Amino acid sequence: MSQSDEQQIRTVIDAWIKASREGDLATVMSLMTDDVVFLTPGNAPMRREDFAAASNSMTGKIKIDGSSEIQEITVTGDLAICWNRLEIVATPLEGDGTPVKRKGSTLSVFRRGQDGKWRIWRDANMLGPASPA
Amino acid sequence: MSQSDEQQIRTVIDAWIKASREGDLATVMSLMTDDVVFLTPGNAPMRREDFAAASNSMTGKIKIDGSSEIQEITVTGDLAICWNRLEIVATPLEGDGTPVKRKGSTLSVFRRGQDGKWRIWRDANMLGPASPA
Repeated sequence: MSQSDEQQIRTVIDAWIKASREGDLATVMSLMTDDVVFLTPGNAPMRREDFAAASNSMTGKIKIDGSSEIQEITVTGDLAICWNRLEIVATPLEGDGTPVKRKGSTLSVFRRGQDGKWRIWRDANMLGPASPA
Repeated sequence: MSQSDEQQIRTVIDAWIKASREGDLATVMSLMTDDVVFLTPGNAPMRREDFAAASNSMTGKIKIDGSSEIQEITVTGDLAICWNRLEIVATPLEGDGTPVKRKGSTLSVFRRGQDGKWRIWRDANMLGPASPA
């Protein structure tokens, strides 16, 4: 039996976190649409190339780990809205290596492509500083 | 000719800003669903009653003004996703009355009710401090 749309989207989120943890940028990039937009507080909207540049600049400098607690997934046609709670720990590989923990809500919209695969298309990231990791 | 869904949603956003400016909480409340969720950085998710309580606590103390620059509205079935840029100026009616300006992106999901009307259902607010108002 094929996975439900909701299950496929959960799989994308898990794959995103796993690839981020492993520093596998190619896999992360394959999980977002070409016209993706990332929205965060205090920054200009980030497009696909901005995301890649920011990730590349961190390669070998920061180790990312994260966990998610999905609150809700609502599928409608070829779009799906996901409210998630994320906790991300960024550990510098240089300096004193003190981990920085951020947590909070995300509201993301996934789009189903022509190939039937779900990818992140719009992402609102409201993570903020959390107590010491 | 009846308004398109997109135009109806633009009208809801305009009505929301106008009602906020006028301190007309009843109208603002009529523009959100019963199960609305407001997500912001650093705060727990806010439900309808939380929004009403927060608004009531500001009545007569703060004057709100705002403007929006809608980036995109995507309608799919009875849901619509809106990426917006908001600028909100909150002016205290007590103290020195120095206005506080906040601006940034919002990613909102509107839901069409049984009555055919669009209302805010999920809202990610990434407004942050802006330069002096």
